[in-house]
Amino acid sequence: METEESSFVSGRTRIFGIVGDPIEQARSPEMFSAEFVRRGLEALMIPIHVLPGDFAACIAQLKRVQNLDGLVFTVPYKQAAIGLADTLGPQARTVGAINALVRQPDGVWMGDMFDGLGCVAAFQWRCYPLLDQRLTLIGAGGAGSAIGVALAHESPRSIRLHDRDQARADDLAAKIRSINPAIEVTTGEPLISDIDVLLNASPVGMLSDPRMPVDISAISPDVIVFDAIVKPERTHLLALAQERGCRTITGREMMRGQMFRLADFFSGRAT
Amino acid sequence: METEESSFVSGRTRIFGIVGDPIEQARSPEMFSAEFVRRGLEALMIPIHVLPGDFAACIAQLKRVQNLDGLVFTVPYKQAAIGLADTLGPQARTVGAINALVRQPDGVWMGDMFDGLGCVAAFQWRCYPLLDQRLTLIGAGGAGSAIGVALAHESPRSIRLHDRDQARADDLAAKIRSINPAIEVTTGEPLISDIDVLLNASPVGMLSDPRMPVDISAISPDVIVFDAIVKPERTHLLALAQERGCRTITGREMMRGQMFRLADFFSGRAT
Repeated sequence: METEESSFVSGRTRIFGIVGDPIEQARSPEMFSAEFVRRGLEALMIPIHVLPGDFAACIAQLKRVQNLDGLVFTVPYKQAAIGLADTLGPQARTVGAINALVRQPDGVWMGDMFDGLGCVAAFQWRCYPLLDQRLTLIGAGGAGSAIGVALAHESPRSIRLHDRDQARADDLAAKIRSINPAIEVTTGEPLISDIDVLLNASPVGMLSDPRMPVDISAISPDVIVFDAIVKPERTHLLALAQERGCRTITGREMMRGQMFRLADFFSGRAT
Repeated sequence: METEESSFVSGRTRIFGIVGDPIEQARSPEMFSAEFVRRGLEALMIPIHVLPGDFAACIAQLKRVQNLDGLVFTVPYKQAAIGLADTLGPQARTVGAINALVRQPDGVWMGDMFDGLGCVAAFQWRCYPLLDQRLTLIGAGGAGSAIGVALAHESPRSIRLHDRDQARADDLAAKIRSINPAIEVTTGEPLISDIDVLLNASPVGMLSDPRMPVDISAISPDVIVFDAIVKPERTHLLALAQERGCRTITGREMMRGQMFRLADFFSGRAT
């Protein structure tokens, strides 16, 4: 029975899961499982399809499975998951949400938020600096808050925040100031002049939405433009930025960056 | 991220699990996962390590996971698992225990017992007949009951049952008669003369146990000798039977037979 194709799972395999509803579209099982193989770990990420009414009770019991060491949460569970963590990591404490749980060596389940760290990792991957840069961030919801908090740790010179809901923008501004008081944080209409980086973390432009989160017809080709949207990979914002001569970073790159940081989290390395 | 090594799991993968404590020694994850691949199914069997105090609550929630379609139970859960089935298959109804649960298309969880079917499958695999044969079965506990019930459906001419606990032997004799009244069933000391098949389903001879379940120094070389014990694969009983010129079937072959029957069960084929 020792066949080549069966070598990816055994009784010793440590299990990780991605929890969502639906789950068929999730690419994390293949991405993480391949990354675990590359790291020489006997581990696997499986899809776990949980219905909303079952969420709390089901995750509580999954945490009791002794060879299940970590969970990633996707739609619609990013907000509810924080209640299942025994302790919170540094990102989650500020953002107020988690998208992953890991069993620590002492058995305590730590939750943390990796959406923003993935964005920062994508900039690092491209060797695009954030230190001392002037940023505009559009969107201060779930993704925007996570990205804003992660950016705050990178010591940019300034962050201009825009959200349709001014109270959300003010709330994120206060979080960023609490992390790093040296950053010049302002809120209001999105600025595209006298900046180095433009980041979109709003849902404007997702799927077949033809709108732009901001008018960039006058943007300088020196500005780096990031869009957190994964589908489509090349949003209208990124397409127009490229036409204008800007360098761009996609939501897919953020996902990949997040996966590496999560794999570190799951394999017990510091985040 | 489309790497060769990641093709074994995706968001669409259907999950099966083997539940036990401990679980590291289980060979089902690799055996079943390889068999699912051979059958062209997008499915995987994972090890699930559940502690006794968590068993009932944890399995109840695992049954709620929408892409988890089946569970196999190993030590120490073969007895407790029957309480988790919504309905019972034909073997389980007579044996009174299950070692597997499957989600049926209507969402109802059916439990059945495959230990005995694996033994019968091993005889079929070797083309050794059971029809009209004279059998001696030693052991009427969990494994012995499952094997006795499965044998009863194969219409042997006679079954001689032996167990250290005479009440257990009588109980199994009654079950066999209820299934197939044409079989001549007797209980008492294990007979090795005037038989065609000797089956050991007692734990005598397991691991480093030097004992024999029955004295076979006078056995005929025409008798087929089966031992349900998996470790060691070649028990003292089987070793001596081979010396006497008998054909033998191992517990490992029963496991393999059981795996094929379980894979049928899991892929929705009739048992």
